[in-house]
Amino acid sequence: MLRGNMLIAQGGGPTVVINQSLVGAILEARKYDDIEAIYGSRHGVSGILKENFVDFTHVGDVHLEAVARTPGSALGSTRDKPDQAYCEKMFEVMQKHNIRYFFYIGGNDSADTCRIVNEEAKKVGYELHIIHIPKTIDNDLPGTDHCPGFGSAARFVASAFRGINFDNASLPGVYIGVVMGRHAGFLTAASVLAKQNESDGPHLIYTPEKNFDIHQFTHAVKEIYEKYRRCIVAVSEGIHDADGVPIMVKLAKQVERDAHGNVQLSGSGALADLLSQRVKDHTGISRVRGDTFGYVQRSFLGCISSVDKQEAREVGMHAVRFAMAGDVDGSVAIKRVGEYSVEYGLIDLSVVAGQTKIMSEDFFENDNMVNETFVKYIKPLVGNLDDVVYLDAPLVNI
Amino acid sequence: MLRGNMLIAQGGGPTVVINQSLVGAILEARKYDDIEAIYGSRHGVSGILKENFVDFTHVGDVHLEAVARTPGSALGSTRDKPDQAYCEKMFEVMQKHNIRYFFYIGGNDSADTCRIVNEEAKKVGYELHIIHIPKTIDNDLPGTDHCPGFGSAARFVASAFRGINFDNASLPGVYIGVVMGRHAGFLTAASVLAKQNESDGPHLIYTPEKNFDIHQFTHAVKEIYEKYRRCIVAVSEGIHDADGVPIMVKLAKQVERDAHGNVQLSGSGALADLLSQRVKDHTGISRVRGDTFGYVQRSFLGCISSVDKQEAREVGMHAVRFAMAGDVDGSVAIKRVGEYSVEYGLIDLSVVAGQTKIMSEDFFENDNMVNETFVKYIKPLVGNLDDVVYLDAPLVNI
Repeated sequence: MLRGNMLIAQGGGPTVVINQSLVGAILEARKYDDIEAIYGSRHGVSGILKENFVDFTHVGDVHLEAVARTPGSALGSTRDKPDQAYCEKMFEVMQKHNIRYFFYIGGNDSADTCRIVNEEAKKVGYELHIIHIPKTIDNDLPGTDHCPGFGSAARFVASAFRGINFDNASLPGVYIGVVMGRHAGFLTAASVLAKQNESDGPHLIYTPEKNFDIHQFTHAVKEIYEKYRRCIVAVSEGIHDADGVPIMVKLAKQVERDAHGNVQLSGSGALADLLSQRVKDHTGISRVRGDTFGYVQRSFLGCISSVDKQEAREVGMHAVRFAMAGDVDGSVAIKRVGEYSVEYGLIDLSVVAGQTKIMSEDFFENDNMVNETFVKYIKPLVGNLDDVVYLDAPLVNI
Repeated sequence: MLRGNMLIAQGGGPTVVINQSLVGAILEARKYDDIEAIYGSRHGVSGILKENFVDFTHVGDVHLEAVARTPGSALGSTRDKPDQAYCEKMFEVMQKHNIRYFFYIGGNDSADTCRIVNEEAKKVGYELHIIHIPKTIDNDLPGTDHCPGFGSAARFVASAFRGINFDNASLPGVYIGVVMGRHAGFLTAASVLAKQNESDGPHLIYTPEKNFDIHQFTHAVKEIYEKYRRCIVAVSEGIHDADGVPIMVKLAKQVERDAHGNVQLSGSGALADLLSQRVKDHTGISRVRGDTFGYVQRSFLGCISSVDKQEAREVGMHAVRFAMAGDVDGSVAIKRVGEYSVEYGLIDLSVVAGQTKIMSEDFFENDNMVNETFVKYIKPLVGNLDDVVYLDAPLVNI
């Protein structure tokens, strides 16, 4: 058995339960004699280069549990993407600290980092076990039924739209809510859970899985508005035209890209504003409002799915168990069993690394609405929302 | 004692607890023999003209309690502002239905409606008792310590910023969150409750009580960023320059106004985007994100202050008690007693009607931060937020 120190880090966008995975892995690692010290790297792989490590070995359980309940990445995050030179420096530092187990909590970019580090480690003959621990509010990792972090963000989105539905019923008009999601529409589609009745919003759901046509969009809004005198729309920030050009990029004066080449889509209200203006201009509807949910949806305090919290903890624990069970590298995956329980498995890093899973065609009723199959898929991950009601009182005779 | 039917309605922007006031008034009214039927008008005063009434007299308590828990205005809302002709039509309909008690749940515009209706009723000799039941997330009504609806919206804002603080600590940069608030900065300033430590965000709070200078703003952001390597800013949508021109109006191509002459500030991300772009252009900081909290802050399911919920119920109950206690009209006001309980009183409609209370100078530490006096004022209204923590682990020696 490989004996040495363990290093854990967090990459990419944080979630409200990402620290559950961190703490799950730390507490589990303490059970194994072959893991000597338990280190954390600050701001993902970038902390390795800077030799910016903290020592979890003797940190108290009560403090760790408080960290687990805290949104954001407790160790700090990064969007760095290591190349060969970057990896060489990492191994130098890792060797110095006798790191033999490396756990990286993150999405597909972080899994890609794991793959690169793993390949480079093999090339230079540095003995290292690498396990990727999945996390993403986008739910876009292949090989796993769903991703920790998604259920809680989906709970925020669904709760928000359920509230918005009643706000919009009070002062009718068109409401457009822009939800995070670059390539995959899972989070936007989660808004469907807001619906208690057919006539409830969101009435239209636009995800990146389908090409977005602005004319069809305004037409659909008008049609719904004529039927219900109001219309609520959920839109992914990543919607794009038939050529694959994001609607957002089409209008942004300048775009910002991270080290993985991703264009910044979040942190701007431009898409909601453009769509609102379009509806105003082309339908004659006067009350049109556009909101962009922004960073609140991945960090809001007090909107955590209990299933998500539990699974985020368990993927961290299982990552350590898998690493200690043999000479393996990989990514922890969740397998759904029945309705509803899960099992954890280890899949090849290449399945996840840099790959994006989008919503299956089976989940769509049509281009702007998801179906019952999707609701059945997502409901256990989000949990029940509060039931709220429309006023039901007899009309006064006139 | 005046005997007849009661009519209740809701005006202006909804809150998550506005239906508590509605249900409080209905249930209380059932105790009085002089109130015969209990009617509700759909979409505020506009429902009176359309004779669009529902009959609450025999609606079950269990259903009413479910309505009370539902965000938004259950009866529907309006932004109509009655003039003399409007009032004449209202009295015709009211007379037909023998309405002798009228309760209007709303903000300063709705209080203004009450004042106008009251004056016109006196002019034409229509015997009617009018009570305004306060509601607004802006907390900007004079004569009352605070307004029902504010505490829950403030809880949303504070919870959001506490989460954002940890998200931003994970991936440091500048974060600008735009909060609702046209003239009064209470809701934006509520973000201060997110802070557990001095170094926590929000680091800067900009409200409409102070003139906004874009150069001072970028300078302040840069200064905080140099100190903490990150900066979180809370900004009211209604911030304006020294001439009183809203920063939002300065850039909007076209502005929308309601019947009360208010410019539409909400439902657009333009202000956050402008400020973010300014910071990027003038500080050289690359990671700058702007969010606009939007309608979610006044309708989010599952973020209700228990004090706010209770008080919203009680202002509704007291409105009926005051109306039945004598020949009075007025607006229900909350008086703070000790730390912390409240008493309810009735104040003259003219105190509230069309008037705006802004934050007292005593609440400010300086132009971009509130002080402990404000925290002491607001904390009981919002309640405690979840405590969350930064990771505290020893550094690894290098």
